[in-house]
Amino acid sequence: MAIKSDIEIARAAMKKPIFEIGATLGIPAEHLAPYGHDKAKVRAQFIAAQAGKKDGRLILVTAINPTPAGEGKTTTTVGLGDGLNRIGKKAIICIREASLGPCFGVKGGAAGGGYAQVIPMEDINLHFTGDFHAVTAAHNLLAAMIDNHIYWGNELDIDLRRVTWRRVMDMNDRALREMVSSLGGVANGFPRQNGFDITVASEVMAILCLATDLKDLEARLGNIIIGYRRDKMPVYARDLKADGAMAVLLKDAMQPNLVQTLENNPAFVHGGPFANIAHGCNSVIATKTALKLGDYVVTEAGFGADLGAEKFFDIKCRKAGLKPDAAVVVATVRALKMNGGVKKDDLAAENVAALVKGCANLGRHLANVRKFGVPVVVAINHFVSDTDKEIAAVQEYVARHGAEAILCRHWAEGSAGIEDLAYKVVELAESGQARFEPLYADSVPLFEKIEIVASKIYHAGEVTADKAVRDQLIVWEEQGYGNLPVCMAKTQYSFSTDPNIRGAPEGHIVPVREVRLSAGAGFVVVITGEIMTMPGLPRSPSAERIFLNEQGYIEGLF
Amino acid sequence: MAIKSDIEIARAAMKKPIFEIGATLGIPAEHLAPYGHDKAKVRAQFIAAQAGKKDGRLILVTAINPTPAGEGKTTTTVGLGDGLNRIGKKAIICIREASLGPCFGVKGGAAGGGYAQVIPMEDINLHFTGDFHAVTAAHNLLAAMIDNHIYWGNELDIDLRRVTWRRVMDMNDRALREMVSSLGGVANGFPRQNGFDITVASEVMAILCLATDLKDLEARLGNIIIGYRRDKMPVYARDLKADGAMAVLLKDAMQPNLVQTLENNPAFVHGGPFANIAHGCNSVIATKTALKLGDYVVTEAGFGADLGAEKFFDIKCRKAGLKPDAAVVVATVRALKMNGGVKKDDLAAENVAALVKGCANLGRHLANVRKFGVPVVVAINHFVSDTDKEIAAVQEYVARHGAEAILCRHWAEGSAGIEDLAYKVVELAESGQARFEPLYADSVPLFEKIEIVASKIYHAGEVTADKAVRDQLIVWEEQGYGNLPVCMAKTQYSFSTDPNIRGAPEGHIVPVREVRLSAGAGFVVVITGEIMTMPGLPRSPSAERIFLNEQGYIEGLF
Repeated sequence: MAIKSDIEIARAAMKKPIFEIGATLGIPAEHLAPYGHDKAKVRAQFIAAQAGKKDGRLILVTAINPTPAGEGKTTTTVGLGDGLNRIGKKAIICIREASLGPCFGVKGGAAGGGYAQVIPMEDINLHFTGDFHAVTAAHNLLAAMIDNHIYWGNELDIDLRRVTWRRVMDMNDRALREMVSSLGGVANGFPRQNGFDITVASEVMAILCLATDLKDLEARLGNIIIGYRRDKMPVYARDLKADGAMAVLLKDAMQPNLVQTLENNPAFVHGGPFANIAHGCNSVIATKTALKLGDYVVTEAGFGADLGAEKFFDIKCRKAGLKPDAAVVVATVRALKMNGGVKKDDLAAENVAALVKGCANLGRHLANVRKFGVPVVVAINHFVSDTDKEIAAVQEYVARHGAEAILCRHWAEGSAGIEDLAYKVVELAESGQARFEPLYADSVPLFEKIEIVASKIYHAGEVTADKAVRDQLIVWEEQGYGNLPVCMAKTQYSFSTDPNIRGAPEGHIVPVREVRLSAGAGFVVVITGEIMTMPGLPRSPSAERIFLNEQGYIEGLF
Repeated sequence: MAIKSDIEIARAAMKKPIFEIGATLGIPAEHLAPYGHDKAKVRAQFIAAQAGKKDGRLILVTAINPTPAGEGKTTTTVGLGDGLNRIGKKAIICIREASLGPCFGVKGGAAGGGYAQVIPMEDINLHFTGDFHAVTAAHNLLAAMIDNHIYWGNELDIDLRRVTWRRVMDMNDRALREMVSSLGGVANGFPRQNGFDITVASEVMAILCLATDLKDLEARLGNIIIGYRRDKMPVYARDLKADGAMAVLLKDAMQPNLVQTLENNPAFVHGGPFANIAHGCNSVIATKTALKLGDYVVTEAGFGADLGAEKFFDIKCRKAGLKPDAAVVVATVRALKMNGGVKKDDLAAENVAALVKGCANLGRHLANVRKFGVPVVVAINHFVSDTDKEIAAVQEYVARHGAEAILCRHWAEGSAGIEDLAYKVVELAESGQARFEPLYADSVPLFEKIEIVASKIYHAGEVTADKAVRDQLIVWEEQGYGNLPVCMAKTQYSFSTDPNIRGAPEGHIVPVREVRLSAGAGFVVVITGEIMTMPGLPRSPSAERIFLNEQGYIEGLF
């Protein structure tokens, strides 16, 4: 039998009308704003009305450090949601929206895979319900108002050289990374160095994903620092009176998007902050709404657990008052072998020795998750090339480290292939073991927060930083920002800052290159390497092979 | 009694579910893709299935040259649609979508006014169904692919100095008009002069509005000229293989948006090409679909009849094979007085002499519309300050010129105030008088086409152009583009190219400054003055006063 592609499986799905999916959660049709027949936004009034209800249980799906072999974090998140529903739990999946730009670079979607997908996958990967376009518009309105303010006399005395607010576009467009704008004479304003990031890197996106409601959203937008005056005092978005109009543009984008899995279970696909310079999680409003409506909420966090889970716990859970009940660390035999030194081309061959060596990476993540007081289980996302010996080796390793590793076949079999994991997750969550605590207290000084993450999570020996960086952190502490969490920006491929060091390195140095204050989102970004905030397209972008076929279906996107 | 604002009236409207509006047109629910409960897109399959049906009658609403006094072209278009429904005709309104950017500059919406509006007006004026965001994305994908092609070796030998394809954003942002992009070193590409236009000025927008279906859309996108090689030969979007992915991004945007008027009559709000460097009409697909579904279709064209009606007839009707049955020229007493020399501050005072002088502008437009073989009636859009003597003077003037001027009170009274106009329009349309012909044949040389429009419509004495412009037109004729219509770009305030000359000037000179080939849209843009393709914000933009109130309603947008 030929293996079906993700898109073939998705198109063959028997979708239910979105109002039916909403009804299973108790959302009346008038509180769903439909987008087509298979997508809907949940209205603010309905969400506000759930306030008094008891929360369901929150499960985080995270992973080992990503490798080119693929781990399947989203696929496992979707699969586990289906699995929990299969064993009789009312479970809701909460994942991030996909960015448009990268779709045209390298082929691939962000809606799961195989028989564990959210649908309609084409829409989810393209414009969806327009949330990212709204973020782009709100971000760029603020940018236009900054240059307009300067043009008309610059009453606020904004220093042209210190405007930190760039523009954004949901496109991979390296030509926009660095530019000089406002050329062409008096009518076009004052020339200055400028540039674009991709929309998911916008602080507006991070704000949308951390705001609890529209009021909180507007307050956070007002808190954005757009740059500095000549006397180095910050200038806020509210000084430009941009916050109100930005909130208006984001009014609908703030509402969670409801879709369904291939098995007709509910999923909130909402928000998409870059896991790099932001916290990389599904929106707080979606997760909190799901907790009111379901027994179980399964959510994921961007990249491996060193970045994704740490930020999920220390930023999202801390800020939103969430208390996760259990965590799943996803691993694949292939990715563990790569962590153990096997090259991508050699992955098909059995190699238990390398696998066991690579398991050190998994073990470190397991121990790290436990530092937050959350019980953990390992999901082995099954690939056809995995051998019995290899699977047994992973299970043995994990057992030695006091946890269980469960083989999951959701990619090939849907919920039927992930029942064991679902039962185990329920057991852990209902055991009452969880004692969630963030890694550090709000009151810890900023630099010390960085050191705590570096030593406890990365197992680094030292954090280094120039005097300018340290001084900047002290200035922010004096200005009242010392209580913010730190949002680490580090390569996702390693516990260290060197993407080539796989496994579980110890005693390495974490050099902090730069710090940035996201005063609206409410965190201090700590940059420990090169950060790409605007990707480029490859030599032969996938856009060249994307088209509408004779039946009007999209080809080449997946 | 206090006069209600447009937004108060709109919010008090008794909206019907959009599926009910669709049902009145015979569109089954499964062929409508809803966006919320009050907006929907009509599916391509349904539209294709209407092909064999008889067309309804097509009515164009156009106007005298606009003045700061306001004419109410959209308001009258909506009012006439309601009026036709009131007298028992199944009438559908076809208007353009609103651009987001200008909403944040100067207060004001684009969905009609008073008791002649399309709703939901907030949505229509903001993101609506995301069409403009899709146009922005498709346009900028092509731009990114151009710079990416150059970055990876420039196999097509595109001349960096001759890239004509800019980027777009739906924002008033003067800082982006002129810039140098790809700065910052090797990784960011080759620096070049670049810039952004507002999204409505994109050729992609014009293409969307002229394409008959998705196949035609993709073909036109492929025909876009993005710039020239060093040997001056054109480079097309299809050379970059961008057309397929652009069509995918525009798949949903191509489908007409169905909304309703305050009186629950159907309206297609679709497409929004700049009336300046494009043709400024509702989309061909919306207009043609409406003609299949209604007895009457009322549509409008941007600016005064010298620009809007001429381009509607010579571009949209010519290309789409449409045959308008009647036209309405909208005038107001106030605007006619301004055409007669009255200043804005003096408009409240009765001034019949100035009014009669200003009627020359109206008379010229009446005669012009008849040159296309279309019977015409004048709608006097009533303002409270109008005196009986003034109204009588307009009616007398129009009667002397062989037509009828009908007083319309739709702004204050809705359809009840516009019955007379509705009956007159039916009389004209059903008289069979219409003998529509474009002003010139396809085969006429390009420069001669310009001269024909200038002499017959503008009553100009001469068209002047540099040798470079004339040579360019000849080159395009040699390349096979000689059969295209011309798309005039001229000030909307005057028949001449001087915005200060009101009334009906004669014998003036039309200097052609520049010509541009829109090979995808299928016309040659003829620029006869300064064209602003990216507006700026005013000193105190309305964005500063837009916010969400305690009830979650938008304040300050209208």
